[in-house]
Amino acid sequence: MRLPKRVKIVEVGPRDGLQHESTVVPTEVKIELINRLSETGLAAIEGASFVSPKWMPQMADSSEVMLGIKRRPGVSYPVLVPNLQGLQAAIAAGADEVAVFGAASESFSRKNINCSIAVSFDRFGEVCEAARKQGLRVRGYVSCALGCPYEGAVDPESVAWVAGRMMELGCYEISLGDTIGVGTPGKARAMIAAVSRKVQVERLAVHFHDTYGQALANILAVLEQGIAVVDSSVAGLGGCPFAPGASGNVASEDLLYMLKGLGIETGVDLQALVAAGRYISDYLQRPSGSRVANALAAHRGEGKNCA
Amino acid sequence: MRLPKRVKIVEVGPRDGLQHESTVVPTEVKIELINRLSETGLAAIEGASFVSPKWMPQMADSSEVMLGIKRRPGVSYPVLVPNLQGLQAAIAAGADEVAVFGAASESFSRKNINCSIAVSFDRFGEVCEAARKQGLRVRGYVSCALGCPYEGAVDPESVAWVAGRMMELGCYEISLGDTIGVGTPGKARAMIAAVSRKVQVERLAVHFHDTYGQALANILAVLEQGIAVVDSSVAGLGGCPFAPGASGNVASEDLLYMLKGLGIETGVDLQALVAAGRYISDYLQRPSGSRVANALAAHRGEGKNCA
Repeated sequence: MRLPKRVKIVEVGPRDGLQHESTVVPTEVKIELINRLSETGLAAIEGASFVSPKWMPQMADSSEVMLGIKRRPGVSYPVLVPNLQGLQAAIAAGADEVAVFGAASESFSRKNINCSIAVSFDRFGEVCEAARKQGLRVRGYVSCALGCPYEGAVDPESVAWVAGRMMELGCYEISLGDTIGVGTPGKARAMIAAVSRKVQVERLAVHFHDTYGQALANILAVLEQGIAVVDSSVAGLGGCPFAPGASGNVASEDLLYMLKGLGIETGVDLQALVAAGRYISDYLQRPSGSRVANALAAHRGEGKNCA
Repeated sequence: MRLPKRVKIVEVGPRDGLQHESTVVPTEVKIELINRLSETGLAAIEGASFVSPKWMPQMADSSEVMLGIKRRPGVSYPVLVPNLQGLQAAIAAGADEVAVFGAASESFSRKNINCSIAVSFDRFGEVCEAARKQGLRVRGYVSCALGCPYEGAVDPESVAWVAGRMMELGCYEISLGDTIGVGTPGKARAMIAAVSRKVQVERLAVHFHDTYGQALANILAVLEQGIAVVDSSVAGLGGCPFAPGASGNVASEDLLYMLKGLGIETGVDLQALVAAGRYISDYLQRPSGSRVANALAAHRGEGKNCA
């Protein structure tokens, strides 16, 4: 296997994970989660989203969260911003990096961010220009990179086109999201192959959901193509709260376990990460979405060792 | 990716799955599960284990199960036999194929089958010879192929040695088990590389547990080495009942979803497989261990669609 020597894990649990929770998580719990994640060796922790509170009540306290966390030197804390207004709020809350989010599917763009892909580019351009003036890096997300809930299959060339345009507008990195987790390894590779003809593979990240259990296999497939930045969510946060087991983001613990086993450096401590995941799982009063976390809990005697 | 055109799925849920259940499943439920699985297109369904009922009460009705199922032409129904006595009971119950089970770890062999690896070879030899006289094929299992609960790491050369010896004794296929699910893709490949120097890769199967969430990634890694027979368990049966989420065998539905996505033929119908898994999950009154099954249930409106 040709694999990168080092992979950067971008922890998205406090944002992409918690935003799917049906009950609002208190600000101090979010802050404590981010602070614990900051002690694990992670280099990037996505902490909040400056979207309209009407649209996403769970993220209404994003300013308080970002002002309340203890920023660890060397760790970046990107936040999502939908537009200039969101960028200004993020900057006021001390953001050191922001992310814009678009889609490779026209229908999803209209339903998720209420505008066409073409119009979204105008907004991204404004945000990127304003962010650059403030010395902030901008990350770009492309949703539906392996499938759309409304359109089904998504052409890898559409993903490549959107990713390429977001790079031109000033993003430093593009995170390619399998938003609904329908991808399989061959399709993931075909998508990365298409996108990397437009954007250097060193500038690409993957953001795979584990809805159909395929995320780690998909990640393995694209690591072999040179992908070295992977988004994941501690405790697999982001699962649909109405469907037990229908999980969301790939669990950071499970990703890290695989990377460690492959001898790939990440700088992240597994035990500390598991402990952070346990903190939020305990708060949410449900089992972790990480199989590694659950297996280790069983071995600690919280379950019975069934080996 | 260099992948096989066709993969044979060996369904082990009714045996390896149910044997981990703490409460005894009624004979008629086991029969109904196997009958439903027989209608999915699966070519092999492991139905029972002729071990001592004292040792494994869940399998005490193995004769009744094997005599009660409706055998579909073209489907094989292998059963586990620990020794000649088990073989005779299996034959009396109409078994068309049997499996013997050994380990690559000396400690696990002694704890799991109460004898050294060397002594286990004598038993396998007896079973293989008697089975051959009856015209029955014998499959061989090697446990702890990627790690042992007592010894930790297991040398791939030990796995290769045990697998090679089982082939010499008359097994037609060797299923290499990551019994405790600790393997990662690079280690899985190193193990298959070592074993395939002793046994043709066409004679090898993998039997990976998903305890740490690594099973599909490991399977993907070894498919690229030419492995074309994969064991799995419908609804992910086999999870430790004392540790919610600490799963057992890789779920057949999740494996099939990946294989279909990769364009690999299996002959198995996903909807029928999901329905069989739902039958047993409903009986056991718990969510399926298959992420595909849970995601499809959510889409059917049993949960809320969170896409």
